[in-house]
Amino acid sequence: MQYRVGVIGGGQLARMMTVPAINLGIEIKVLAETENSSAKLAAAVVGDYTDLKTVMDFAKDVDVITFDHEHVPLEILKAIEAAGVSVQPSSKALAHAQNKLVMRKALEKIGAPNPRWLEVSSPAELDSFIGEFGPEVIVKTPIGGYDGKGVRVVRNSSEVSDWFEPAALALLGGALLVEEKVSFVRELAQLSARNSSGEFRAWPVVETRQSNGVCSEVLAPAPNLSSELAKKAKQIAELISSSLEVTGNLAVEMFETADGRLLVNELAMRPHNSGHFSIEGSTTSQFEQHLRAVLDLPLGETEVSKPAVMVNLLGLSNEIDFVENYPELMKQYSNAKLHSYGKSPRIGRKLGHITVIGDSHESALATALQARAAILGVR
Amino acid sequence: MQYRVGVIGGGQLARMMTVPAINLGIEIKVLAETENSSAKLAAAVVGDYTDLKTVMDFAKDVDVITFDHEHVPLEILKAIEAAGVSVQPSSKALAHAQNKLVMRKALEKIGAPNPRWLEVSSPAELDSFIGEFGPEVIVKTPIGGYDGKGVRVVRNSSEVSDWFEPAALALLGGALLVEEKVSFVRELAQLSARNSSGEFRAWPVVETRQSNGVCSEVLAPAPNLSSELAKKAKQIAELISSSLEVTGNLAVEMFETADGRLLVNELAMRPHNSGHFSIEGSTTSQFEQHLRAVLDLPLGETEVSKPAVMVNLLGLSNEIDFVENYPELMKQYSNAKLHSYGKSPRIGRKLGHITVIGDSHESALATALQARAAILGVR
Repeated sequence: MQYRVGVIGGGQLARMMTVPAINLGIEIKVLAETENSSAKLAAAVVGDYTDLKTVMDFAKDVDVITFDHEHVPLEILKAIEAAGVSVQPSSKALAHAQNKLVMRKALEKIGAPNPRWLEVSSPAELDSFIGEFGPEVIVKTPIGGYDGKGVRVVRNSSEVSDWFEPAALALLGGALLVEEKVSFVRELAQLSARNSSGEFRAWPVVETRQSNGVCSEVLAPAPNLSSELAKKAKQIAELISSSLEVTGNLAVEMFETADGRLLVNELAMRPHNSGHFSIEGSTTSQFEQHLRAVLDLPLGETEVSKPAVMVNLLGLSNEIDFVENYPELMKQYSNAKLHSYGKSPRIGRKLGHITVIGDSHESALATALQARAAILGVR
Repeated sequence: MQYRVGVIGGGQLARMMTVPAINLGIEIKVLAETENSSAKLAAAVVGDYTDLKTVMDFAKDVDVITFDHEHVPLEILKAIEAAGVSVQPSSKALAHAQNKLVMRKALEKIGAPNPRWLEVSSPAELDSFIGEFGPEVIVKTPIGGYDGKGVRVVRNSSEVSDWFEPAALALLGGALLVEEKVSFVRELAQLSARNSSGEFRAWPVVETRQSNGVCSEVLAPAPNLSSELAKKAKQIAELISSSLEVTGNLAVEMFETADGRLLVNELAMRPHNSGHFSIEGSTTSQFEQHLRAVLDLPLGETEVSKPAVMVNLLGLSNEIDFVENYPELMKQYSNAKLHSYGKSPRIGRKLGHITVIGDSHESALATALQARAAILGVR
């Protein structure tokens, strides 16, 4: 007997799922976009995830289908579900991570804390929202955004006139999402997992720091957070996870406001950048937990016993391969845990991450930032 | 640029090296004995490691050759070294791990603590040693032994008469090794690593418990060991590692005697069963460290901050596949870290291991033993 998981998408999340698959003796197959994918060490099939036949064929030899990204069209997932394939999270749950308007409506319905928001189909509706909650607001395309793409901070509807053009608007889901620009003191992320038997486990909520809309640093657990807010974050995740019947990992990105509220910013239903610290920092890594959850296996301990800091490695050039800096990094920072995603360098591309476990967030962060500079060759 | 490591042998040690290879973006290739090897997730070539051409071809596309086991004939290694291949550890160092007589002689020369021993070529020589240091002594075949094989406790040379037959003796290296049966209070293992630049790092010495000559449990760090003996263990490892010019991991198995001495029992120059705890229990796992050491990269931190216990999973049947017990194990022991080697079941075969990190050795050991019973289906 062998558990078999099929992952659609061959990025770093699929790559990092191969590690617990090796440890647990789970067979992992990846449907990758290209021959040279980040997850090519797993048994990778190269194919188009928007093609029903490709996905159906891929699903034949596995027990469950799960994801490295949210971009598989819902129609494809519904069709393979109808054919009897176990898709985790299901198309029904995943719809909320694929479409931000669907998400806002569902969160409102279940009573999870949204910022003020509106579905807008015309510049006039947007300008009216700006008049009420501006001067600045956040406009988001309901589908297709990630890492800051599909998100604009605007003061006037003219700044998203391209998105309102009928052809563009149709592609983006027929309407835009506008949200108040929340005045927050910091961003948090609550990562959790749920299996289809309903077992739920959450890691401690973490602090995430963004740079140009992309996750740059994560501090786990979130430093100086009241136990009340930590509890609240977990409750929000559990509410969303159970109400939307999420299986596998759920990341809830949140704002912590100056007046002590938590507001949901984004959802992801897969391993998430905010949880990479868990590989070294927790008893169960988010990648192992995701595999266990989608296979409906009991979940592992999520304890974090020491402060952990994760920093992303974003490409600073299209040429420099950071492998050349391994000796320097390893010599100077013998406790820095490096994760390479095996990608060719490109400016702004997520090429890897470094985690440091320390006695304090301050010392771990200082080491992690220096280690990042060393591996990226910043002098 | 990419670091490329070739591993001869496709067992669980090669399998577990693939994890840090994924993390660090190191290309790993394995020369496996069979198609269905434990390390088949790595790019595995199937071939005979006693065939020079096979090994030479395998070595062509990698920066360095290292090992999952000690059984590659020295002539093969010398031949590929002569052809310019980097072999780590070198044939010169590895000779000491392949031949127990070579090892005893070298340890004596460098002043490492041996039990009393003798090279014996005849029953009369053996009986004379028994007369002096018996009534019981340990007879070992210099080559080919592992996990208790090639080792006998005897009171009379007649108990190893088969090994003294001329044809057998020639195969075993021309002589036998006899050692006093050390009266020990427990067995310890000192794992360390050294790169060819000479950097040396050791994990804390651990206590190993054997069952029928096979490692059964490991407690890390060794409980209740005086700091003096812990320091001594590390000094012995460093002496051996530097004197014999070992590169990569070195495991020194030792006896702790009632009168507070340490005596070297066995050496291994590769990742070792006594170091599996380091995957979760130390900043740097022994598998990552071995890859770094053989590539002459700087070594990682070897700190162990909490008590760790590792238990081996030895097959209790030729049929029962422990995968069926995953739900039970995971439900009851959510902090047990399971490692499966992906092998078909067989009585006595090492099928995997479990590590538990705890607040005390007692609690971690109790959990690990219960978890082992659960996964092996012992009711």
